[in-house]
Amino acid sequence: WDAAGLNEVFVDIHFSRQLLDCFTSPFLNIEMNGAGNLMDFLDEPFPDVGTYEDFHTIDWLREKSRDTDRHRKITSKSKESIWELIKSLLDAWSGWVVMLLIGLLSGTLAGVIDLAVDWMTDLKEGVCLSAFWYSHEQCCWTSNETTFDDRDKCPQWQKWAELMTGHAEGAGAYVLNYFLYILWALLFSFLAVSLVRVFAPYACGSGIPEIKTILSGFIIRGYLGKWTLLIKTVTLVLAVSSGLSLGKEGPLVHVACCCGNLFCSLFSKYSKNEGKRREVLSAAAAAGVSVAFGAPIGGVLFSLEEVSYYFPLKTLWRSFFAALVAAFTLRSINPFGNSRLVLFYVEYHTPWYMAELVPFILLGVFGGLWGTLFIRANIAWCRRRKTTQLGKYPVLEVIAVTGITAVLAYPNPYTRRSTSELISELFNDCGALESSQLCDYINNPNMSRPVDDIPDRPAGPGVYTALWQLALALIFKIVITIFTFGMKIPSGLFIPSMAVGAIAGRIVGIAVEQMAYHHHDWIIFKNWCRPGADCVTPGLYAMVGAAACLGGVTRMTVSLVVIMFELTGGLEYIVPLMAAAVTSKWVADAFGKEGIYESHIQLNGYPYLDVRDEFTHRTLATDVMRPRRNDPPLAVLTQDSTTVEDVETLIKDTDYNGFPVVVSRESERLIGFVQRRDLTLAIKNARQKQDGVVSSSVVYFTEDAPQLPASNPQPLKLRRILNLSPFTVTDHTPMETVVDIFRKLGLRQCLVTRSGRLLGIITKKDVLRHMAQMMNQDPESIMFN
Amino acid sequence: WDAAGLNEVFVDIHFSRQLLDCFTSPFLNIEMNGAGNLMDFLDEPFPDVGTYEDFHTIDWLREKSRDTDRHRKITSKSKESIWELIKSLLDAWSGWVVMLLIGLLSGTLAGVIDLAVDWMTDLKEGVCLSAFWYSHEQCCWTSNETTFDDRDKCPQWQKWAELMTGHAEGAGAYVLNYFLYILWALLFSFLAVSLVRVFAPYACGSGIPEIKTILSGFIIRGYLGKWTLLIKTVTLVLAVSSGLSLGKEGPLVHVACCCGNLFCSLFSKYSKNEGKRREVLSAAAAAGVSVAFGAPIGGVLFSLEEVSYYFPLKTLWRSFFAALVAAFTLRSINPFGNSRLVLFYVEYHTPWYMAELVPFILLGVFGGLWGTLFIRANIAWCRRRKTTQLGKYPVLEVIAVTGITAVLAYPNPYTRRSTSELISELFNDCGALESSQLCDYINNPNMSRPVDDIPDRPAGPGVYTALWQLALALIFKIVITIFTFGMKIPSGLFIPSMAVGAIAGRIVGIAVEQMAYHHHDWIIFKNWCRPGADCVTPGLYAMVGAAACLGGVTRMTVSLVVIMFELTGGLEYIVPLMAAAVTSKWVADAFGKEGIYESHIQLNGYPYLDVRDEFTHRTLATDVMRPRRNDPPLAVLTQDSTTVEDVETLIKDTDYNGFPVVVSRESERLIGFVQRRDLTLAIKNARQKQDGVVSSSVVYFTEDAPQLPASNPQPLKLRRILNLSPFTVTDHTPMETVVDIFRKLGLRQCLVTRSGRLLGIITKKDVLRHMAQMMNQDPESIMFN
Repeated sequence: WDAAGLNEVFVDIHFSRQLLDCFTSPFLNIEMNGAGNLMDFLDEPFPDVGTYEDFHTIDWLREKSRDTDRHRKITSKSKESIWELIKSLLDAWSGWVVMLLIGLLSGTLAGVIDLAVDWMTDLKEGVCLSAFWYSHEQCCWTSNETTFDDRDKCPQWQKWAELMTGHAEGAGAYVLNYFLYILWALLFSFLAVSLVRVFAPYACGSGIPEIKTILSGFIIRGYLGKWTLLIKTVTLVLAVSSGLSLGKEGPLVHVACCCGNLFCSLFSKYSKNEGKRREVLSAAAAAGVSVAFGAPIGGVLFSLEEVSYYFPLKTLWRSFFAALVAAFTLRSINPFGNSRLVLFYVEYHTPWYMAELVPFILLGVFGGLWGTLFIRANIAWCRRRKTTQLGKYPVLEVIAVTGITAVLAYPNPYTRRSTSELISELFNDCGALESSQLCDYINNPNMSRPVDDIPDRPAGPGVYTALWQLALALIFKIVITIFTFGMKIPSGLFIPSMAVGAIAGRIVGIAVEQMAYHHHDWIIFKNWCRPGADCVTPGLYAMVGAAACLGGVTRMTVSLVVIMFELTGGLEYIVPLMAAAVTSKWVADAFGKEGIYESHIQLNGYPYLDVRDEFTHRTLATDVMRPRRNDPPLAVLTQDSTTVEDVETLIKDTDYNGFPVVVSRESERLIGFVQRRDLTLAIKNARQKQDGVVSSSVVYFTEDAPQLPASNPQPLKLRRILNLSPFTVTDHTPMETVVDIFRKLGLRQCLVTRSGRLLGIITKKDVLRHMAQMMNQDPESIMFN
Repeated sequence: WDAAGLNEVFVDIHFSRQLLDCFTSPFLNIEMNGAGNLMDFLDEPFPDVGTYEDFHTIDWLREKSRDTDRHRKITSKSKESIWELIKSLLDAWSGWVVMLLIGLLSGTLAGVIDLAVDWMTDLKEGVCLSAFWYSHEQCCWTSNETTFDDRDKCPQWQKWAELMTGHAEGAGAYVLNYFLYILWALLFSFLAVSLVRVFAPYACGSGIPEIKTILSGFIIRGYLGKWTLLIKTVTLVLAVSSGLSLGKEGPLVHVACCCGNLFCSLFSKYSKNEGKRREVLSAAAAAGVSVAFGAPIGGVLFSLEEVSYYFPLKTLWRSFFAALVAAFTLRSINPFGNSRLVLFYVEYHTPWYMAELVPFILLGVFGGLWGTLFIRANIAWCRRRKTTQLGKYPVLEVIAVTGITAVLAYPNPYTRRSTSELISELFNDCGALESSQLCDYINNPNMSRPVDDIPDRPAGPGVYTALWQLALALIFKIVITIFTFGMKIPSGLFIPSMAVGAIAGRIVGIAVEQMAYHHHDWIIFKNWCRPGADCVTPGLYAMVGAAACLGGVTRMTVSLVVIMFELTGGLEYIVPLMAAAVTSKWVADAFGKEGIYESHIQLNGYPYLDVRDEFTHRTLATDVMRPRRNDPPLAVLTQDSTTVEDVETLIKDTDYNGFPVVVSRESERLIGFVQRRDLTLAIKNARQKQDGVVSSSVVYFTEDAPQLPASNPQPLKLRRILNLSPFTVTDHTPMETVVDIFRKLGLRQCLVTRSGRLLGIITKKDVLRHMAQMMNQDPESIMFN
């Protein structure tokens, strides 16, 4: 074994290539080393080289470089034989195959989840006698004995009390139904939290904060694993069915990302490159939202705006493909039984009027306030959970919250049903055939208008009852959601937020409608609201309110409006939606720039460099770099005077991820950077396999080691693992530029020099800590990098 | 005057701030200079400092830094008084105000253009007697004497021959109409080209290649000026009305960007910062597409995917706002008279079937081939125009092409009308009331199906005539468009490309429909096409074909599908559109990666660094940097041993845009970079205003100049204009990383070092030249940077 043996094992480290390239490059560089042994390497990477440890940050430039290498290798090989050509074509197409598979699987899972949730939600109230696996709607759909009016009352569907005691009505039946409703809810939530606890702790929560962090380049092993996928899917069904105030949208994004990760492992192009893997995950997130709402374009924009970190145009296109496939798969499963892709299909018949912008903007203000309140209260509660005894009893907590939810929810018809049904009803316009309590208007028999074009009418008693119940439901949802989000079960935020907004919006909508009816001579109504005309659509107010509240919580903007646009399918209502979404964002931003996901990222201390935070402070690189004034000097290696023992001591005594290599300690001129992991592996390997390498061997990072007398120990040449192009900035570089560079290039660390002398180092952790410090946050909360 | 005088004039140069900041920074840096005169500067920038010369590239990092400074200044001032607070709020809102104004103006202009084009296109054929400013449709719309069937024949509208000779029919009338048609066309195009030549040469072409280049950071003064706006608007109307094979979509983007630039000048935030200005222009481009097609979301995605270079999330949101305002302004003007936002509103009644994907994919292949053919032929023709005598006679060329177009177009009813009308007819489904020749099917009186749900029927003679005419129109459009695009008049590509695709698609659609009718027992039709059923929609084929051809030419993907989706308003047809768009892109990419805009950018040699070109070659920074092996050494300044005269000689003898400053020529250790423009201005200023600065004065870039004996000339301290944080890479950095850095950070130049020694410099021009060289292109075609 000689020094060339080392070459063989480190070929996958990207910079070794640089040495080889000068031979094939048209620009033969005379200054480059001309050693003859540069070409003798094997094409087999040493295990673990080029991978990352758990909870570490990836180096985007390095990943990109490695992928380019891989691509170059395949391209040059493809000219050799037909087989290699086919392999290269397969490789080029593998991205599309992965997208197709993600779309198919996440669409299927979403369909299965929808069906299961439907069934289990109804199971809390009763069972279908003809086939117990039918939900209420499916059960009565197949029944021939029901008329259209009573389409949700069919003999095959029996409530538990009716089934057990024979009495469908009366106080006894009500109490029994109530009791069983709570029991089922507790059972479902207990199962959910136990499964999460035992099998996949990562399956809890919405998953979006973690996915954002992972996409920004952090490694959390197992977060997108097979177990998480399985358990999250199952427990999501249980959690939603239990009637807790949570939705399935966020977790569906997590499920889709798990699918993406699963299919990545089929292709080495993605499984071995953390950068490429993240491109797939971005697309998977789009597919997740696509199936959650049936909004493929909204999904892509959500991934672009909210989740992704690195989103090249190629990913945009692939995301779109994955989102479409997923949406169409879901549509073929047709879980809602209406051939509609979207979750809440609505069609409004009347346009909106300029004056209505006032209530829409008020709803926006409400949404912004709700967003602020929710984020603050939820974060405070989650912090308490983290820091006090509370966090030690997650199962008990879930049981308690489920119990309270069920007890309070059952008596109110608007909270008893599933939240998405509630939203759907609130969004709906009151047609002629609507049997809902919300549509209990007093009909004027003198009016001779066609049945399906109903003008504004005075509200009947049903509407007033509904208003009270909705007001109670609003307060209940607001309070309980704060305690629900963040528990150790899968829980999404979209649906509860939308429910809060939809309730508020519908109340405002009915108020405006009645005002317009009773006071159509007022100046504001005069122009657009003649008596007997249909001028106010309360359902639209519900939709606007939902958008405002969702916007306040998540701070989504374009993607939110596009999702809403896809739900209604008309450009007509974009202006109201946008007015509300913008107002909500502005109001919420006035109280704090961070959305719920960023707040949770911060709470958990993930090293996430938000692209939206503008760094506007006047600090320089020299203020941030390590070592600080009273610190020991920077741990560096010299290019030709460090022994193996010195290096080993340095590795043992410090926990830095890498070490700069300088010409000499006196000149401090930087020549490269070496990763701790590579150094450890290289020395271990050399000590085992290379004769003559002992503790007193000198480590050379230069191109050629000098010819030493035979009595000296064999030198160890490590130029192969030296990164000769470390990223440097000068000490005078403003930190805003440094932050920009870290963000855009996805660096792990950056060296600081002045006049060519090495002064210090800035890591991503340092940048994050500095940014937190500048914003008066607790800098110690940032996770180890 | 002393050295402090200089401070006053260079405060706007961003790095001067760095010196000041250490006093307010919480991290007081002891190593930083503590000179007392650092604070004595005026807040007034020296004219021209911080601006760029024409045809130069901007430095994105510097622009961003300047904006952060400005923002910081306003924020700190806003705490001083209410008035300053209001000013800061106004500043924060100015972005939205600009968006609103852009939306309003570009929507209005688009509406006016639409109305004017409508009128002038019809003017070629005849005139409205009741009001000459009515177009044919408007004229007959107000007429009460027409029945629904003959709604385009009303007595108020008279063709020229009828008006002049009294005879509406006959050979004489035909010839007279023909002649006048040609005459009007020649008049319009002559006016258009003359106006462009005389008043605004930049108003020609589609403008998108130039806008892409400008958005990537290039300066082309006057390209988005007021004159260009005015002349482009007027000549666009003339050019489209003249019947040439061109569209108004690309130029509308240019018009919208001119609006954006116009409103930028209202706010110093945008007018004085080239980086911020480009954010506004990106949004304006979205507004342009939004009004061109009535597709706001598609417009935003077009701007994101096709045009923009730097597109932060804030811009996404603002673009969306501008696009919406523009779309709604256009809708209030209602130029199409149908309250529809979209250019081609269609509604199809039947779904598509899996087997139809085969013809859709074939249309995709056709689109890709057309794209390749068009790009190659058009570029070859444009190159010929640039290099031969042809380019010297732009007016004659336009006249000739218009003449040929008019002569060939008039006899064929499908080319005589305006191209957008043609597309609209081709997209349309044959309803019961359709009077078009394309819908001349043989009715079977035995069928008792409802009138508005027409099953597939055998084609009548009208359809066969139409097929022949369409085939001729296809060939004509293909050939003439190649010669039209690139002439010295405003000309868009979208509409002609879509027309080619729509014609081909409709032909294929009718063929499939007739095949299905005559052979419905064939295995492929059996399952989905029973006799008498409505199974093939030829209009859908036209739409798919249009998408394929547009995709082949421009290589748009997501934005294309979204625009088409917004035209139809249904998710239903996304899969056919996507299948065609993907196929078209793949086929076209197989022949060459560049779309028409990139090809024109290259043809014109603009310094555009495409984000989509992946650089996969194995070269290093050392292969690209200047000086090359046989070049003279790099022109550098030393920090404390250059005299004013030396500097002046260096400026006179070289034409570099800046000079690195090193510690000494021996050590070659880099300390900073100074811009040529700043250096010239500083020396000029010092010689005029500062006593004792003579040719033999030593220029000091150090923190403190030494105390010299009184006999020595007064030193000139220039540290203020020195950029202390120049961007550096090592000579071993792979070029793919360097290209990435240039792209993502928007650099102008980058210095190359090894072990702290300055080796050379890489400019954006060097990068572009190297990339062109690597792709075997002509490196000399890149414009001076």
